[in-house]
Formats: sequence, C-alpha cells, structure tokens
Amino acid sequence: MKKIINDVASVEEQMIQGLVKAAPDMLRKLEYGTIVVRAQRKQGQVALVSGGGSGHEPAHAGYVGKGMLDCAVAGTVFTSPTPDQVLEGIKAVATDQGVLCVVKNYTGDIMNFEMAVEMAADEGIKAEYVVVNDDVAVKDSLYTTGRRGVAGTILVHKIAGAKAEEGADLKAVKEVAEKVIANVRTMGMAIAPCTVPAAGKPGFELAEDEMEIGIGIHGEPGTHREKLASADTIAKMLVDHILADIDYKGQEIVLIVNGMGATPLMELYIVNNFVHDYLTKQGITIYDTMVGNYMTSIEMAGFSLTLLRLDDEMKSLYDAKAHTLAWKK
Amino acid sequence: MKKIINDVASVEEQMIQGLVKAAPDMLRKLEYGTIVVRAQRKQGQVALVSGGGSGHEPAHAGYVGKGMLDCAVAGTVFTSPTPDQVLEGIKAVATDQGVLCVVKNYTGDIMNFEMAVEMAADEGIKAEYVVVNDDVAVKDSLYTTGRRGVAGTILVHKIAGAKAEEGADLKAVKEVAEKVIANVRTMGMAIAPCTVPAAGKPGFELAEDEMEIGIGIHGEPGTHREKLASADTIAKMLVDHILADIDYKGQEIVLIVNGMGATPLMELYIVNNFVHDYLTKQGITIYDTMVGNYMTSIEMAGFSLTLLRLDDEMKSLYDAKAHTLAWKK
Repeated sequence: MKKIINDVASVEEQMIQGLVKAAPDMLRKLEYGTIVVRAQRKQGQVALVSGGGSGHEPAHAGYVGKGMLDCAVAGTVFTSPTPDQVLEGIKAVATDQGVLCVVKNYTGDIMNFEMAVEMAADEGIKAEYVVVNDDVAVKDSLYTTGRRGVAGTILVHKIAGAKAEEGADLKAVKEVAEKVIANVRTMGMAIAPCTVPAAGKPGFELAEDEMEIGIGIHGEPGTHREKLASADTIAKMLVDHILADIDYKGQEIVLIVNGMGATPLMELYIVNNFVHDYLTKQGITIYDTMVGNYMTSIEMAGFSLTLLRLDDEMKSLYDAKAHTLAWKK
Repeated sequence: MKKIINDVASVEEQMIQGLVKAAPDMLRKLEYGTIVVRAQRKQGQVALVSGGGSGHEPAHAGYVGKGMLDCAVAGTVFTSPTPDQVLEGIKAVATDQGVLCVVKNYTGDIMNFEMAVEMAADEGIKAEYVVVNDDVAVKDSLYTTGRRGVAGTILVHKIAGAKAEEGADLKAVKEVAEKVIANVRTMGMAIAPCTVPAAGKPGFELAEDEMEIGIGIHGEPGTHREKLASADTIAKMLVDHILADIDYKGQEIVLIVNGMGATPLMELYIVNNFVHDYLTKQGITIYDTMVGNYMTSIEMAGFSLTLLRLDDEMKSLYDAKAHTLAWKK
C-alpha cells in the first residue's frame, strides 16, 4: 500500500483535523469523534446532519457551512459512524426547529442514524431522517436493501440546506429533501480500485483491459465487468441506464460528472464533452454542470454521472448562495 | 495505458470542449486550437493571458473568468502552445489597455510566448509577459534554465487578475504580478507517475517503497529519491526547503496544499494537518488555505506545497471576488 499518511490508525482523525484547519473560522471539530460542525451554531432554523464512512472526501465534511450542512459525522473508512457519534453530532447542532439527517442507503448507516434519531427524541430533540438512494446500477447490493446512496446526496445537502437557511420548518425541509431524492439518479464505473488503509490492499482487482460498470462508492460490484471501452461508449452506457429509470426528456437538469478520487480532470472533461451533447440531443436542458471530485472512493479511478430533474423551487434553492469547502458557488 | 478517453489524438480538443460545455455562458473555445476565452470579452481593462501544455487541469482554462484570466492557451499534453496559437489568444482578448501574459518558466513556453508577444506588438497590441518560477526544488531542470513555474502560478492569475479587474494599467498589473512571483515558493513530491496519452506508458518508475522529492509538474526529476516516509516527514521536508529560500517567519501567508491529480483529498488533508501546525509554530500566520487539485500532472500521485507572503495589496486582491470553474471563492 503506497499512501501519503502517517499511520493507519490515525488516518480519519488527522484527515478531519486537517480539513478543519483549512477553514478554522468556518468549521470546528468536536472532541468526541470525527465530527465536524459549523464554527457558528445556527439558531432558529432546522439543522442538517449527514455523514457516513470516511473515504468519500470531500463528502461529507466539505459540505458543512452556510447554506448546506450543519454537521457531518464521519465513521472510519467505509464504515458507518456509531449511533452515539451521530447523536453527539445531532446534539451539537440541534435547534428548537429540529434536525434533519440525510442518510445514504447502506444498511449500517440506516441502522445507526435511525437509532441516533430515536435517542435524540428521548432527549427531547425533534429529529427526522431521509434516505438517499440515487444509484440506479443495482437493486440490492452487498451493503444495501434497495438502491445505494451515492453522489446525488450532495444535491440533497445543497437544496435541503438552502431550504433550512430560508427558515422553513422541519416538515418543509424534509419534503424538499424527498423531492430531490425522487428526482435524482446516478450511475458509476471504475477502471482501478482503491485501498482501505486498514486493509492494506486494493478492495478488488481489474485486469489492465477491464472496467467495472455500475460500481458503488466502496468498490462494491456493479452490474458487470467488461473490456475497457472509449469514454463516449462508457458515458452513453451510464446515461442510458439512468434514462431508463427516469425519463428526463424535456426536463431541465443539473448534471454532475463526479470523479472517484484519482480520475484526472482531463478524463472527466472528455466525458462531459460527450454527455453534454448526448443529453442535449435528447431534448434535455442542462441548467448547470459540475465536474470534479464531489463524492469519492479514496483513490479509486473512475467516474459517476448524476442527473437531477429540477423544478422552480429546486432551481432557486440550488442557486442560493452556500459557503463550504467543497461547494463551488 | 488505462485511461477514460476516446483516442489519443483527440484528448486535448475533447477535453477543452468538455470544459467549455461545463460553463457555456462563461467560456468560449476559439475555432483555432485549444484556446479558451471568456464568453464576454472585457473592454477597457488589461487582459490576462496564460497557458502552457495540457495535462495540468484545471490549469489554465479553469482559471478563465471574471477576476482572473481572459484567455488560456493550451498546447498538447506537456508541450508549449505554438507562438501563433498564443498570438490568436492574445488577439482574441486584447484591449486598448494591453495584455499581460503569465508564463511558467519552461524553455519552450518562454520562447513561444515571447515570440507571440513580439508578433502582437507588430500588430499594434501592447503586450508584455511575466515569468513564474516558484519551484524551489532545483536551480535548473531538464526543461528550464532557472527554477520551474508550478502551482504558485495560479496565485499570479488571481492577484494580477483582480488588479486588472480594478482597472489598473498594464504597468501596475505587471508590477503586482511580479510582486507575487517574488513572494511565492512551491515544492512538490510524487509517489506515482503519470502517463502522457501519446506516450502510452508512465514517464518514470518508482518502486513500491520509493518517492521522488522535488519533482516537477511533468514528472521531471527532483532533488532525489528516497524511501517513502510518513506524511508529516515528507511535508516537513518540503516546508523546510521552502523556508530555506524565503524566511516566511512573522509573515502572513496563503498556503496551497495541491494535489497532483490522483492524490485523494484524504491524504491532502492529512498533509495540511501537519503543515498548518508546523507553520503556525514558527510564527507564520496562515491567512487562507487551499486544499485540492489546482495544478496537476494528469494522474500523477503526490502533492506540492505553495506559500505566498502577503502584503495588504495582495491580500485585498486575493480576497476580491472571482468567478471561474476552478477558483473557489
């Protein structure tokens, strides 16, 4: 394993400390666990909490800040945070308006966030959660019942975060989060694996001429393996799979071309060159495009495509100003 | 070679097209070559032109937009654009206030930008250039006389770009660019090479337990190779080398922890965790920190550290609003 780290045991802690030190006026790390909150605690508005295993940087701590999350709770790499860690996060940001947790659909995350929400209720905190399941690749997976939650999650953070910032109540923030979830779809692929530090070796192997289609953000198997094809062929395959699930024709969308961690921007832009034209030809209007590393799998090489169908409310919330490490507007 | 591309010959063209399609309201590609300009041409202010070989994405086209560059001229991967390509770029954005070219110190770039500036002068365009040479690793290199220009270049774009946007004249914009150059230093390292598409194989090889210290952004040799060390040990080595060149003690700085393309954010934040504390302990005040992929070498794995000593003028220009694909403020 060749990594720029100090030791395996301190990866998550030192990473989160280093992230907070990149914006010490904006972010604060709780003493208890790898939990990041806004330096200025919000008052009188719904607070948003998200999280999951580490290894998806900049998700989720990179989305903590004005207009998005109030708190990100990170577990160890590719492992859900514990219920008490999530509870600590909830308690650190809860307001009288309540807390909405945004959870990616993995069995461990669902179980632990659900338990934390119940524990918060026992302490008198109004907390609810939504489950993001945007990955159209597989119906069930190694780690999920139902579809996995992947890069579309950050659009839930953005849009529900903006709604909370407007002062909407918990019911309205949860409703708009569920609207995003209903309208966002993602599919990904990889040409090279990543190595979980504690494992010390790649999570899977691909031959020099092979790729995995429909892969998850922990390197879970996708729909199938096949010979490496051209960027356009791969991108078409992913888009077609997404469009088979939701027909985005005639709609206005946000497009994310998301790098898995080690994919150079050169390749992501080549993918965008095809996807932009291919969607446009089908009568889909691209309202905005994001190209970069937004929801990664450590240093996996590959990309995912995310499409979100917009309505006027989502568009205006998408455009609202946000200030976090990883959101670029 | 395992890459997500279509064919080697179209990499640069399709990449630049895909980049422009990520922000079609903001950017435009010239017909002639891989040259990106602002969609709205600036009037009555100094125009900024930069560029160099492709393969350093988001540099330089990712820095075209309000408050930074007016034009980025890209050559093929790791190869300077030709003088006539640079001239096309200059002509496409030139104003009556003139043009400042920001050139990284490589023999080919200097030669071609210098020639383009002379050709522009023949056509009645007031054009000048500055040379960025922030890399403290080696005095001369395979491709340079004197120090190489690397990630510090984007701070020249930012600060000189803001100065131009204020309406300063060519002399003043050039002076502030030279002030940044005088105060910015960088050093980098790599644990894994990149592959130039046209070459089809990695530019160099490193053993599983080896790293290259002082490497350039084309994989040029650095100061030496040694056994892979801990993140903190590597970061200290780079910082000490930089501080030996400029004593930043007691100063206020901008810090860039720059990924080389395939380095996960996890590792960059672990590096920042050390560097932040190490600089602070030496009485250096970190005014702002940027962590991410700003000046890359395709999919090389490694990072560089950049320190810029600020004064009040540079600080205010650094803070000025900019709107480009890759600048995050």
